[in-house]
Amino acid sequence: MNQINRVAIVGGTHGNEFTGAYLIKKFAQFPELITRPSFETVTLLANPQAFAAARRYIDKDLNRCFLRKDLQNPNLNGYEELQAKSIKNRLATKGDKQADFILDLHSTTSNMGLTIILVNTHPFNLKLAAYLSEINPLVNIYYCAFESIAENPFVNSLCELGFAIEVGPIAQGILKAKLFQQTEELIHGVLDYIEQFNQGQIFTTKEALTLYHHLSVIDYPKKDDGTIFCMIHPQLQDKDYQALNPGDPMFLTFDNKTIVYQGESTVWPVFINEAAYYEKGIAMAFTKKEQLKIDDL
Amino acid sequence: MNQINRVAIVGGTHGNEFTGAYLIKKFAQFPELITRPSFETVTLLANPQAFAAARRYIDKDLNRCFLRKDLQNPNLNGYEELQAKSIKNRLATKGDKQADFILDLHSTTSNMGLTIILVNTHPFNLKLAAYLSEINPLVNIYYCAFESIAENPFVNSLCELGFAIEVGPIAQGILKAKLFQQTEELIHGVLDYIEQFNQGQIFTTKEALTLYHHLSVIDYPKKDDGTIFCMIHPQLQDKDYQALNPGDPMFLTFDNKTIVYQGESTVWPVFINEAAYYEKGIAMAFTKKEQLKIDDL
Repeated sequence: MNQINRVAIVGGTHGNEFTGAYLIKKFAQFPELITRPSFETVTLLANPQAFAAARRYIDKDLNRCFLRKDLQNPNLNGYEELQAKSIKNRLATKGDKQADFILDLHSTTSNMGLTIILVNTHPFNLKLAAYLSEINPLVNIYYCAFESIAENPFVNSLCELGFAIEVGPIAQGILKAKLFQQTEELIHGVLDYIEQFNQGQIFTTKEALTLYHHLSVIDYPKKDDGTIFCMIHPQLQDKDYQALNPGDPMFLTFDNKTIVYQGESTVWPVFINEAAYYEKGIAMAFTKKEQLKIDDL
Repeated sequence: MNQINRVAIVGGTHGNEFTGAYLIKKFAQFPELITRPSFETVTLLANPQAFAAARRYIDKDLNRCFLRKDLQNPNLNGYEELQAKSIKNRLATKGDKQADFILDLHSTTSNMGLTIILVNTHPFNLKLAAYLSEINPLVNIYYCAFESIAENPFVNSLCELGFAIEVGPIAQGILKAKLFQQTEELIHGVLDYIEQFNQGQIFTTKEALTLYHHLSVIDYPKKDDGTIFCMIHPQLQDKDYQALNPGDPMFLTFDNKTIVYQGESTVWPVFINEAAYYEKGIAMAFTKKEQLKIDDL
């Protein structure tokens, strides 16, 4: 594997996820914080109009605009669709400006601590994830596999190396100092690791990694007219990454009836009660807890 | 004081405060829950378009649209401005349909527990607030005085009796079952008290009430271009209703410098880090903790 010459830190992909957006503003003011000797670091506020409006998006969720066919479709001209094409041109056009590693900063109302969202199992990403989870026990690894890069609609589809960081719980449209600091420390961990990699040093000797492999998304039970009639059960709220066993409470109806998990095997839910996912019909995502062997680079 | 014949429960005044909006939907489905023998209870989803969009408002904050001069101004035709006039016609037009008591349901990202927001010190409101804080220690009373009703822009300006309920912490755009249940219990407490009042019974013998009297709002320190460069200090986050003394930390700058409270006397902040107040230039509101004597009705 070659040296990493250019790292892009992207924030404000969702305009109401302030932690990442204001970290980008901080790094713009104090660029020395993200400067390392062996590579260039660039920052990008990905959705400035949505950030100004303190909304997730203006026309369409930007982090669903990166399907290859959509990026190539000249008829898609919504604000975020154009923004996605512009970001691709800036970060993923072969040449000097191409990013070798993309870190995309997100936040969630779910209790996901400091989550790394992998979209592939490139050994470099795995080793870096292993290193970050070693230095901070709050770090969890969530792995969303895609059949091919072309089918990955996220910013991170632009580059094989890199991942999203998802921190929570935090409401949309606010900053929490402690989470802001923890996220920044995680970013420093990423940059320091890349620096050491470029210097030919290896930080981690871990041969396996615990990850939460995405299985499926689960909607709220709904009435015929499509409206919800229940909430995340109090016993499941904030229990991201904890085992949910058959028979365990999942939802509580507005008139206080418990709906239990009726699957046949244990799952590990994440994104429990994420605000932005109500409109997507997602109450949580199920994962399977796995040990993954890390291949050599 | 006369009997209370008609109680209005208003929710979804802010479309992304789901607790109140979905309680209104629950009560529409199970009207027996809010039925009491001696009075009629009506419900109102105040801002249906904003609720459908999961946003606080479409054109303008509805809970700032009730200034008397604005309600009388035929030139104000924004969605919420028209909605305010419609709500006034439904709830505050003399006659059969006039509400004698209005309860307006809100939620906040601040750690305000179960807060009653009084906009006057009518003895009935005070006695009811005292009763509610007696049966549930999570209940706090926040008092925002207005020079006159004409200068009160809230839904509650429509009626001398009643108040807003503000529950938190909860992110915008989600439901949390526990807070949903606690809010519903508080509403039942209000309705039960009104029923007993109409029956000629008095629940509380309290002669004084602890309340947090609004003093002023405090903005985030800002750069010349109007952007923020600091956050609520971790030591102040979630400390609503707790004493803030001169010299105590208030803000933390993005580069980790602490800004302390420089006032001369102790204050009790509320609405610390409310998401909707970033655009209003409000980091928190200062209050003074007071004991108020309750006059007889």
